[in-house]
Amino acid sequence: MKIDSVDLFYLRMPEVLDIGDGSQDALLVRVTAGGFVGWGEAEASPLTSIASWIAPMSHSACHPVIDSVMGENIDSPADVFAIARKVRANSFYAIIQSDLTLSGIEIALWDLLGQMKGEPIWKLLGYKTAERKLPYASVLFGDTAAETLQKAIDIRKQGFSAIKFGWGPFGRFGVEADAEHIFAAREGIGQDAHLMIDGGTIFDEDVEAAALRLPALSQANVLWYEEPFAAAALSAYGELSRRTPQVKLAGGEGAHNPHQAEHLIDHGGVGFVQIDTGYIGGIGDAYRVAQYAKARGVQFVNHTFTSHSALSASLQPFAGLKDSWITEYPMEPKSLCVELTVDKIEVESDGMITIPDRPGIGLEINLAAVKKYLVDTEIKVAGKVLYKTPTV
Amino acid sequence: MKIDSVDLFYLRMPEVLDIGDGSQDALLVRVTAGGFVGWGEAEASPLTSIASWIAPMSHSACHPVIDSVMGENIDSPADVFAIARKVRANSFYAIIQSDLTLSGIEIALWDLLGQMKGEPIWKLLGYKTAERKLPYASVLFGDTAAETLQKAIDIRKQGFSAIKFGWGPFGRFGVEADAEHIFAAREGIGQDAHLMIDGGTIFDEDVEAAALRLPALSQANVLWYEEPFAAAALSAYGELSRRTPQVKLAGGEGAHNPHQAEHLIDHGGVGFVQIDTGYIGGIGDAYRVAQYAKARGVQFVNHTFTSHSALSASLQPFAGLKDSWITEYPMEPKSLCVELTVDKIEVESDGMITIPDRPGIGLEINLAAVKKYLVDTEIKVAGKVLYKTPTV
Repeated sequence: MKIDSVDLFYLRMPEVLDIGDGSQDALLVRVTAGGFVGWGEAEASPLTSIASWIAPMSHSACHPVIDSVMGENIDSPADVFAIARKVRANSFYAIIQSDLTLSGIEIALWDLLGQMKGEPIWKLLGYKTAERKLPYASVLFGDTAAETLQKAIDIRKQGFSAIKFGWGPFGRFGVEADAEHIFAAREGIGQDAHLMIDGGTIFDEDVEAAALRLPALSQANVLWYEEPFAAAALSAYGELSRRTPQVKLAGGEGAHNPHQAEHLIDHGGVGFVQIDTGYIGGIGDAYRVAQYAKARGVQFVNHTFTSHSALSASLQPFAGLKDSWITEYPMEPKSLCVELTVDKIEVESDGMITIPDRPGIGLEINLAAVKKYLVDTEIKVAGKVLYKTPTV
Repeated sequence: MKIDSVDLFYLRMPEVLDIGDGSQDALLVRVTAGGFVGWGEAEASPLTSIASWIAPMSHSACHPVIDSVMGENIDSPADVFAIARKVRANSFYAIIQSDLTLSGIEIALWDLLGQMKGEPIWKLLGYKTAERKLPYASVLFGDTAAETLQKAIDIRKQGFSAIKFGWGPFGRFGVEADAEHIFAAREGIGQDAHLMIDGGTIFDEDVEAAALRLPALSQANVLWYEEPFAAAALSAYGELSRRTPQVKLAGGEGAHNPHQAEHLIDHGGVGFVQIDTGYIGGIGDAYRVAQYAKARGVQFVNHTFTSHSALSASLQPFAGLKDSWITEYPMEPKSLCVELTVDKIEVESDGMITIPDRPGIGLEINLAAVKKYLVDTEIKVAGKVLYKTPTV
């Protein structure tokens, strides 16, 4: 079937705070073909990605994403892969934001295909079953160690046996202060739960500074030490990984193509590779990384800090992998992301989650929420309107 | 001095063709402080980069570039480095286009500082002298081998003793056809000239396909084999570099931060690292790569396919390095890029070029050309105009 329409929507909270919370706005994509509708979200600055969607061509390697999507056919997984390849081939230079834009569109195409075939995406990818996963609560550190302790206690009470703390004060107030937060987190969740720490790239490429946190991390028996460095600082990851056989490194959310994730495995020495399908290029590219990781004994983990539709999209690529058993679960998303889907992926009584066995993403988008948070946007070049917020 | 204004201009040719020619549009940046004016160009989709300049903040890691530049002070090289670091720290996630936008702004800041201090940028970077460089003519392959031959003859006649052919038909019509082009190029320029071949990323990550071209490249005694693969395909570069001790690989123009260029040296095995200051983050980041390359016996080469102001900006980071003696020289830029500067970096009678020993970039921007090619652009979000083409 021919793609009939592709619409990008910029959604946002009435107020956006200067904190490490990616759920404050969203770039939502809707694709239609043959009466079917698919939805996807990109983890991207909405306005910047909208510009990459419709920007006038600069040269043959710098097409807007729209040039490679409109008018294409979609009848099979091969068609989705072909469209993604076409975007990469036409938009690989000077319009790097297009990698993120592609991600949202590609997910919407998979969702659309799932609706057409009446199958969940993980089945279209070739998995026979969707393994249940252990969700970890992903939260920001408290401003004080006492706050972190209380957060940990509360989350454990909610039934989570795996918790990740990150960002906020970490790395900003010295080694001692960080240790206090780490020990408070461990104390709050108990010795029998999984604890992960997210550095939020705070040490950029400073291996010594990142290494100073290793004793506390090791003592608190953390499962992984995430993103101490900038996403691209492969050599720093590699050096730190050789110093810390006890605490495994994690990273990958900044990978905007599968190569970068693969290099983080090969040269960065991570034990966990964390992929956001809304960033790396979509579900197909995330699936490629999941297979690559599996073959090398590295655990694939989703990166999701936003909506449950984004969560479902991020679960599809490793749904069938038994050894990749832990999954990021957004705990404190803003109301925009809470309201975006009608149904949710709930944490069940045994603390596990089940990936939907319904067509496509398996969750229904709440059109009322789309309308509620929609931001009216217009881009005009040389007197011509290239983008105007579409009707929901 | 406090930065008074930063203006981004979208320039473009009346007609933009779907060919591998990056000189058909430009993102020009003007910065003013204390009555001084600096100019820079980013190698970027202008509209997409303008969006990344003013996009509403998404979260603490996804600020628009403007948030880290306006209101800052600029009195020394350290201030330029500090502003660049601030942009990277505030805009590293989900707004990846900002790396390119930063590049144009950072160059304009160096130019401004040069005007303030009355010094060329290479002196501000610490170089005592600017070495003369051998310019190579950088052109697209002809559509046929006969056309490539004629182009090579013509360029040699113009006084060039180093020529690079790339893009166009290369990699699209089989190994034989490519060999014909390569041999035609060699025949046209003569045995005593330097010949380089640019694959234009045509083989993506297909090492076998790229390797099939090695015999002809070796027989034609090419100096380097450039970008056979996608910029991010490090492993493919690494594998091919181990197969071709005779023909050195080159790459790096796709690096949008210094890490990527350094990894191409460390893991990709390139013998030449090609950096565009308008892409990698500016002159400071390019300088970092130049020093890194020098320490590892790798030649630093500029990537420049556009204007002479972009050429001068790309020459500054390795101006003082004797061992990095060859430089890309744009041969067929569109009139926009020809007219953008009042003066030029001319090829001298001995076939060499001299880096300007004048304040800043050392070339004067032609305001009439800026006005002539200016594209009227407006971005409106939630009823508010966030960007409107500034007055020249």
